[in-house]
Amino acid sequence: MALFRTELDSLQDLLVNQIQDLYDAENRLIDALPKMAEAAHSPQLRQAFESHLEETRGHVTRLEQVFEALGQAPKRETCQAMKGLIAEGEEAIKAKGNSAVKDAALIAAAQRVEHYEMAGYGTARTLATQLAHDRPASVLQQTLEEEKAADLKLSNIAESSVNTQAAARVGASTS
Amino acid sequence: MALFRTELDSLQDLLVNQIQDLYDAENRLIDALPKMAEAAHSPQLRQAFESHLEETRGHVTRLEQVFEALGQAPKRETCQAMKGLIAEGEEAIKAKGNSAVKDAALIAAAQRVEHYEMAGYGTARTLATQLAHDRPASVLQQTLEEEKAADLKLSNIAESSVNTQAAARVGASTS
Repeated sequence: MALFRTELDSLQDLLVNQIQDLYDAENRLIDALPKMAEAAHSPQLRQAFESHLEETRGHVTRLEQVFEALGQAPKRETCQAMKGLIAEGEEAIKAKGNSAVKDAALIAAAQRVEHYEMAGYGTARTLATQLAHDRPASVLQQTLEEEKAADLKLSNIAESSVNTQAAARVGASTS
Repeated sequence: MALFRTELDSLQDLLVNQIQDLYDAENRLIDALPKMAEAAHSPQLRQAFESHLEETRGHVTRLEQVFEALGQAPKRETCQAMKGLIAEGEEAIKAKGNSAVKDAALIAAAQRVEHYEMAGYGTARTLATQLAHDRPASVLQQTLEEEKAADLKLSNIAESSVNTQAAARVGASTS
Protein backbone atom coordinates (compact mmCIF):
# COMPACT_ATOMS: atom_id res chain seq x y z
CA MET A 1 0.00 0.00 0.00
CA ALA A 2 3.16 2.19 0.03
CA LEU A 3 1.91 4.03 3.09
CA PHE A 4 5.23 5.04 4.57
CA ARG A 5 5.60 7.71 1.92
CA THR A 6 2.11 8.94 2.73
CA GLU A 7 1.01 11.38 5.40
CA LEU A 8 -2.10 9.80 6.90
CA ASP A 9 -3.75 12.84 8.45
CA SER A 10 -7.34 11.82 7.78
CA LEU A 11 -9.55 8.89 6.80
CA GLN A 12 -9.85 10.62 3.44
CA ASP A 13 -6.06 10.24 2.96
CA LEU A 14 -6.39 6.54 3.79
CA LEU A 15 -9.36 6.10 1.43
CA VAL A 16 -7.43 7.68 -1.46
CA ASN A 17 -4.46 5.41 -0.67
CA GLN A 18 -6.73 2.34 -0.67
CA ILE A 19 -8.25 3.30 -4.03
CA GLN A 20 -4.75 3.81 -5.51
CA ASP A 21 -3.75 0.37 -4.21
CA LEU A 22 -6.85 -1.29 -5.72
CA TYR A 23 -6.31 0.59 -9.00
CA ASP A 24 -2.83 -0.91 -9.26
CA ALA A 25 -4.09 -4.37 -8.21
CA GLU A 26 -6.91 -4.42 -10.79
CA ASN A 27 -4.62 -3.23 -13.59
CA ARG A 28 -2.12 -5.98 -12.75
CA LEU A 29 -4.99 -8.47 -12.83
CA ILE A 30 -6.01 -7.33 -16.33
CA ASP A 31 -2.52 -8.36 -17.49
CA ALA A 32 -2.59 -11.67 -15.57
CA LEU A 33 -6.08 -13.05 -16.28
CA PRO A 34 -5.57 -13.77 -20.01
CA LYS A 35 -2.54 -15.93 -19.08
CA MET A 36 -4.61 -17.75 -16.44
CA ALA A 37 -7.39 -18.32 -19.02
CA GLU A 38 -4.91 -19.63 -21.58
CA ALA A 39 -3.37 -22.03 -19.05
CA ALA A 40 -6.75 -23.42 -17.91
CA HIS A 41 -7.50 -26.91 -19.16
CA SER A 42 -11.19 -27.02 -18.23
CA PRO A 43 -13.36 -24.99 -20.65
CA GLN A 44 -15.56 -23.97 -17.69
CA LEU A 45 -12.55 -22.57 -15.83
CA ARG A 46 -11.23 -20.79 -18.93
CA GLN A 47 -14.65 -19.19 -19.41
CA ALA A 48 -14.73 -18.11 -15.74
CA PHE A 49 -11.34 -16.36 -16.11
CA GLU A 50 -12.43 -14.70 -19.37
CA SER A 51 -15.67 -13.47 -17.88
CA HIS A 52 -13.85 -12.18 -14.78
CA LEU A 53 -11.46 -10.29 -17.09
CA GLU A 54 -14.45 -8.40 -18.50
CA GLU A 55 -15.69 -7.68 -14.96
CA THR A 56 -12.21 -6.52 -13.93
CA ARG A 57 -12.16 -3.96 -16.77
CA GLY A 58 -15.44 -2.68 -15.32
CA HIS A 59 -13.87 -2.49 -11.84
CA VAL A 60 -11.10 -0.26 -13.22
CA THR A 61 -13.73 2.06 -14.75
CA ARG A 62 -15.58 2.18 -11.41
CA LEU A 63 -12.36 3.06 -9.55
CA GLU A 64 -11.85 5.92 -12.03
CA GLN A 65 -15.36 7.13 -11.14
CA VAL A 66 -14.41 7.00 -7.44
CA PHE A 67 -11.19 8.97 -8.09
CA GLU A 68 -13.29 11.60 -9.90
CA ALA A 69 -15.86 11.79 -7.08
CA LEU A 70 -12.97 12.31 -4.62
CA GLY A 71 -11.46 15.05 -6.79
CA GLN A 72 -8.35 13.00 -7.52
CA ALA A 73 -6.59 12.04 -10.75
CA PRO A 74 -6.37 8.23 -11.14
CA LYS A 75 -3.01 7.01 -9.83
CA ARG A 76 -1.53 3.56 -9.25
CA GLU A 77 0.24 2.88 -5.96
CA THR A 78 2.32 -0.30 -6.29
CA CYS A 79 0.50 -3.12 -4.56
CA GLN A 80 3.22 -5.46 -3.19
CA ALA A 81 0.72 -8.10 -2.16
CA MET A 82 -0.87 -8.31 -5.62
CA LYS A 83 2.61 -8.62 -7.15
CA GLY A 84 3.16 -11.64 -4.89
CA LEU A 85 -0.29 -13.07 -5.61
CA ILE A 86 0.24 -12.82 -9.36
CA ALA A 87 3.70 -14.39 -9.02
CA GLU A 88 1.90 -17.32 -7.38
CA GLY A 89 -0.53 -17.50 -10.29
CA GLU A 90 2.44 -17.63 -12.68
CA GLU A 91 3.88 -20.51 -10.66
CA ALA A 92 0.60 -22.40 -11.11
CA ILE A 93 0.73 -21.67 -14.87
CA LYS A 94 4.28 -23.08 -15.11
CA ALA A 95 3.69 -26.10 -12.83
CA LYS A 96 4.17 -29.56 -14.32
CA GLY A 97 1.86 -32.53 -13.86
CA ASN A 98 -1.75 -33.61 -14.33
CA SER A 99 -3.79 -30.96 -16.14
CA ALA A 100 -6.83 -31.23 -13.83
CA VAL A 101 -4.56 -30.84 -10.78
CA LYS A 102 -2.93 -27.82 -12.44
CA ASP A 103 -6.41 -26.37 -12.94
CA ALA A 104 -7.04 -26.85 -9.20
CA ALA A 105 -3.77 -24.97 -8.54
CA LEU A 106 -4.89 -22.12 -10.83
CA ILE A 107 -8.16 -21.91 -8.88
CA ALA A 108 -6.25 -21.88 -5.57
CA ALA A 109 -4.15 -18.93 -6.78
CA ALA A 110 -7.16 -17.07 -8.22
CA GLN A 111 -9.20 -17.43 -5.02
CA ARG A 112 -6.35 -15.85 -3.06
CA VAL A 113 -6.54 -12.89 -5.47
CA GLU A 114 -10.32 -12.63 -5.05
CA HIS A 115 -9.97 -12.65 -1.27
CA TYR A 116 -7.33 -9.92 -1.41
CA GLU A 117 -9.70 -7.79 -3.41
CA MET A 118 -12.63 -8.56 -1.10
CA ALA A 119 -10.57 -7.27 1.84
CA GLY A 120 -9.47 -4.18 -0.10
CA TYR A 121 -12.94 -3.27 -1.34
CA GLY A 122 -14.46 -4.00 2.09
CA THR A 123 -12.06 -1.51 3.71
CA ALA A 124 -12.57 1.12 1.01
CA ARG A 125 -16.38 0.77 1.10
CA THR A 126 -16.39 1.14 4.93
CA LEU A 127 -14.18 4.25 4.76
CA ALA A 128 -16.34 5.80 2.01
CA THR A 129 -19.50 5.11 4.05
CA GLN A 130 -18.01 6.66 7.19
CA LEU A 131 -16.96 9.72 5.20
CA ALA A 132 -20.52 9.98 3.75
CA HIS A 133 -19.24 9.53 0.18
CA ASP A 134 -22.47 7.75 -0.70
CA ARG A 135 -22.00 7.27 -4.45
CA PRO A 136 -18.39 5.97 -4.14
CA ALA A 137 -19.51 3.67 -1.29
CA SER A 138 -22.25 2.21 -3.48
CA VAL A 139 -19.91 1.74 -6.46
CA LEU A 140 -17.30 0.02 -4.24
CA GLN A 141 -20.01 -2.23 -2.77
CA GLN A 142 -21.06 -3.30 -6.29
CA THR A 143 -17.51 -4.42 -7.08
CA LEU A 144 -17.21 -6.14 -3.69
CA GLU A 145 -20.32 -8.20 -4.53
CA GLU A 146 -18.82 -9.17 -7.91
CA GLU A 147 -15.54 -10.27 -6.29
CA LYS A 148 -17.51 -12.44 -3.83
CA ALA A 149 -19.51 -13.94 -6.69
CA ALA A 150 -16.32 -14.65 -8.67
CA ASP A 151 -14.83 -16.40 -5.63
CA LEU A 152 -17.98 -18.52 -5.18
CA LYS A 153 -18.00 -19.46 -8.88
CA LEU A 154 -14.39 -20.69 -8.57
CA SER A 155 -15.31 -22.73 -5.46
CA ASN A 156 -18.17 -24.33 -7.37
CA ILE A 157 -15.94 -25.16 -10.35
CA ALA A 158 -13.35 -26.70 -8.01
CA GLU A 159 -15.85 -28.73 -6.03
CA SER A 160 -18.13 -29.87 -8.84
CA SER A 161 -15.75 -30.42 -11.68
CA VAL A 162 -12.01 -29.84 -11.62
CA ASN A 163 -11.12 -31.58 -8.36
CA THR A 164 -13.44 -34.51 -9.10
CA GLN A 165 -11.75 -35.00 -12.47
CA ALA A 166 -8.33 -34.70 -10.88
CA ALA A 167 -9.21 -37.32 -8.26
CA ALA A 168 -10.72 -39.63 -10.91
CA ARG A 169 -7.72 -39.39 -13.23
CA VAL A 170 -5.25 -40.06 -10.47
CA GLY A 171 -7.44 -42.97 -9.29
CA ALA A 172 -7.48 -44.36 -12.84
CA SER A 173 -3.73 -44.01 -13.26
CA THR A 174 -2.96 -45.84 -10.03
CA SER A 175 -5.60 -48.60 -10.27
CA MET B 1 3.17 -21.22 -3.64
CA ALA B 2 6.42 -22.09 -5.50
CA LEU B 3 4.54 -24.58 -7.68
CA PHE B 4 6.77 -24.49 -10.73
CA ARG B 5 9.34 -26.57 -8.91
CA THR B 6 6.62 -29.05 -7.93
CA GLU B 7 5.29 -31.98 -9.92
CA LEU B 8 1.53 -31.76 -9.47
CA ASP B 9 0.52 -35.33 -10.28
CA SER B 10 -2.32 -35.59 -7.77
CA LEU B 11 -4.58 -33.56 -5.52
CA GLN B 12 -2.50 -34.93 -2.65
CA ASP B 13 0.58 -33.18 -4.13
CA LEU B 14 -1.42 -29.95 -4.30
CA LEU B 15 -2.70 -30.35 -0.73
CA VAL B 16 0.84 -30.84 0.60
CA ASN B 17 1.96 -27.76 -1.35
CA GLN B 18 -0.91 -25.71 0.10
CA ILE B 19 -0.05 -26.80 3.65
CA GLN B 20 3.63 -25.88 3.10
CA ASP B 21 2.53 -22.46 1.82
CA LEU B 22 0.27 -21.88 4.85
CA TYR B 23 3.02 -23.10 7.20
CA ASP B 24 5.36 -20.43 5.80
CA ALA B 25 2.61 -17.78 5.89
CA GLU B 26 1.70 -18.49 9.54
CA ASN B 27 5.33 -18.47 10.65
CA ARG B 28 5.89 -15.11 8.93
CA LEU B 29 2.80 -13.82 10.71
CA ILE B 30 4.17 -14.89 14.11
CA ASP B 31 7.14 -12.57 13.43
CA ALA B 32 4.93 -9.72 12.16
CA LEU B 33 2.06 -9.60 14.68
CA PRO B 34 4.10 -8.37 17.68
CA LYS B 35 5.24 -5.38 15.56
CA MET B 36 1.63 -4.71 14.54
CA ALA B 37 0.55 -4.90 18.22
CA GLU B 38 3.33 -2.53 19.28
CA ALA B 39 2.39 -0.02 16.58
CA ALA B 40 -1.33 -0.06 17.47
CA HIS B 41 -2.51 3.05 19.28
CA SER B 42 -5.94 1.75 20.37
CA PRO B 43 -5.68 -0.67 23.34
CA GLN B 44 -8.54 -2.69 21.83
CA LEU B 45 -6.63 -3.11 18.56
CA ARG B 46 -3.40 -3.98 20.35
CA GLN B 47 -5.25 -6.63 22.34
CA ALA B 48 -6.80 -8.02 19.14
CA PHE B 49 -3.33 -8.41 17.55
CA GLU B 50 -1.93 -10.02 20.71
CA SER B 51 -4.79 -12.46 20.96
CA HIS B 52 -4.48 -13.34 17.26
CA LEU B 53 -0.77 -13.98 17.82
CA GLU B 54 -1.72 -16.67 20.36
CA GLU B 55 -4.24 -18.15 17.90
CA THR B 56 -1.61 -18.08 15.12
CA ARG B 57 0.77 -20.15 17.27
CA GLY B 58 -2.09 -22.67 17.58
CA HIS B 59 -2.55 -22.63 13.78
CA VAL B 60 1.10 -23.58 13.32
CA THR B 61 0.65 -26.51 15.72
CA ARG B 62 -2.45 -27.62 13.81
CA LEU B 63 -0.56 -27.48 10.49
CA GLU B 64 2.11 -29.70 12.06
CA GLN B 65 -0.66 -32.17 12.96
CA VAL B 66 -1.84 -32.09 9.33
CA PHE B 67 1.72 -32.71 8.05
CA GLU B 68 1.92 -35.71 10.40
CA ALA B 69 -1.45 -37.09 9.27
CA LEU B 70 -0.27 -36.80 5.65
CA GLY B 71 3.01 -38.59 6.48
CA GLN B 72 5.08 -35.49 5.70
CA ALA B 73 7.77 -33.65 7.68
CA PRO B 74 6.79 -29.99 8.30
CA LYS B 75 8.32 -27.80 5.58
CA ARG B 76 7.97 -24.12 4.69
CA GLU B 77 7.45 -23.20 1.03
CA THR B 78 8.11 -19.47 0.58
CA CYS B 79 4.80 -17.67 0.30
CA GLN B 80 5.41 -14.68 -2.01
CA ALA B 81 1.97 -13.22 -1.35
CA MET B 82 2.40 -13.24 2.43
CA LYS B 83 5.81 -11.55 2.01
CA GLY B 84 4.00 -8.77 0.09
CA LEU B 85 1.16 -8.61 2.62
CA ILE B 86 3.58 -8.27 5.53
CA ALA B 87 5.56 -5.62 3.62
CA GLU B 88 2.27 -3.70 3.43
CA GLY B 89 1.78 -4.11 7.20
CA GLU B 90 5.27 -2.67 7.72
CA GLU B 91 4.35 0.30 5.55
CA ALA B 92 1.34 0.93 7.80
CA ILE B 93 3.61 0.70 10.87
CA LYS B 94 6.01 3.28 9.41
CA ALA B 95 3.32 5.65 8.08
CA LYS B 96 3.23 9.18 9.47
CA GLY B 97 0.14 11.06 10.57
CA ASN B 98 -2.84 10.85 12.90
CA SER B 99 -2.59 7.84 15.23
CA ALA B 100 -6.24 6.76 14.83
CA VAL B 101 -5.88 6.91 11.02
CA LYS B 102 -2.68 4.85 11.30
CA ASP B 103 -4.64 2.30 13.35
CA ALA B 104 -7.21 2.15 10.53
CA ALA B 105 -4.32 1.51 8.10
CA LEU B 106 -3.01 -1.32 10.34
CA ILE B 107 -6.50 -2.86 10.32
CA ALA B 108 -6.67 -2.55 6.50
CA ALA B 109 -3.36 -4.42 6.19
CA ALA B 110 -4.32 -7.06 8.76
CA GLN B 111 -7.67 -7.77 7.09
CA ARG B 112 -5.88 -8.44 3.80
CA VAL B 113 -3.74 -11.00 5.66
CA GLU B 114 -6.83 -12.63 7.19
CA HIS B 115 -8.48 -12.88 3.79
CA TYR B 116 -5.36 -14.46 2.29
CA GLU B 117 -5.46 -17.08 4.99
CA MET B 118 -9.20 -17.64 4.58
CA ALA B 119 -8.62 -18.40 0.88
CA GLY B 120 -5.67 -20.70 1.68
CA TYR B 121 -7.44 -22.66 4.41
CA GLY B 122 -10.63 -22.86 2.32
CA THR B 123 -8.69 -24.49 -0.53
CA ALA B 124 -6.77 -26.84 1.77
CA ARG B 125 -9.95 -27.86 3.65
CA THR B 126 -11.76 -28.61 0.36
CA LEU B 127 -8.84 -30.70 -0.94
CA ALA B 128 -8.58 -32.62 2.36
CA THR B 129 -12.34 -33.32 2.28
CA GLN B 130 -12.22 -34.54 -1.31
CA LEU B 131 -9.29 -36.82 -0.45
CA ALA B 132 -11.25 -38.18 2.57
CA HIS B 133 -8.60 -36.93 5.02
CA ASP B 134 -11.32 -36.34 7.59
CA ARG B 135 -9.23 -35.32 10.60
CA PRO B 136 -7.01 -32.87 8.64
CA ALA B 137 -10.15 -31.44 7.00
CA SER B 138 -11.70 -30.83 10.42
CA VAL B 139 -8.52 -29.25 11.83
CA LEU B 140 -8.21 -26.96 8.77
CA GLN B 141 -11.89 -26.00 9.12
CA GLN B 142 -11.29 -25.00 12.78
CA THR B 143 -8.49 -22.62 11.76
CA LEU B 144 -10.61 -21.26 8.88
CA GLU B 145 -13.35 -20.37 11.40
CA GLU B 146 -10.79 -18.59 13.62
CA GLU B 147 -9.44 -16.57 10.68
CA LYS B 148 -13.00 -15.51 9.78
CA ALA B 149 -13.66 -14.54 13.40
CA ALA B 150 -10.39 -12.53 13.56
CA ASP B 151 -11.41 -10.68 10.37
CA LEU B 152 -14.85 -9.90 11.79
CA LYS B 153 -13.33 -8.65 15.06
CA LEU B 154 -11.10 -6.26 13.08
CA SER B 155 -14.13 -5.01 11.10
CA ASN B 156 -15.96 -4.34 14.36
CA ILE B 157 -13.00 -2.47 15.86
CA ALA B 158 -12.69 -0.35 12.70
CA GLU B 159 -16.39 0.45 12.47
CA SER B 160 -17.16 0.98 16.15
CA SER B 161 -14.02 2.61 17.43
CA VAL B 162 -10.92 3.39 15.42
CA ASN B 163 -12.49 5.02 12.35
CA THR B 164 -14.98 6.97 14.47
CA GLN B 165 -12.12 8.38 16.54
CA ALA B 166 -10.15 9.15 13.39
CA ALA B 167 -13.11 11.02 11.90
CA ALA B 168 -13.77 12.88 15.18
CA ARG B 169 -10.14 13.93 15.62
CA VAL B 170 -9.84 15.17 12.09
CA GLY B 171 -13.17 16.98 12.53
CA ALA B 172 -11.89 18.58 15.74
CA SER B 173 -8.63 19.66 14.17
CA THR B 174 -10.34 21.33 11.22
CA SER B 175 -13.24 22.96 13.13
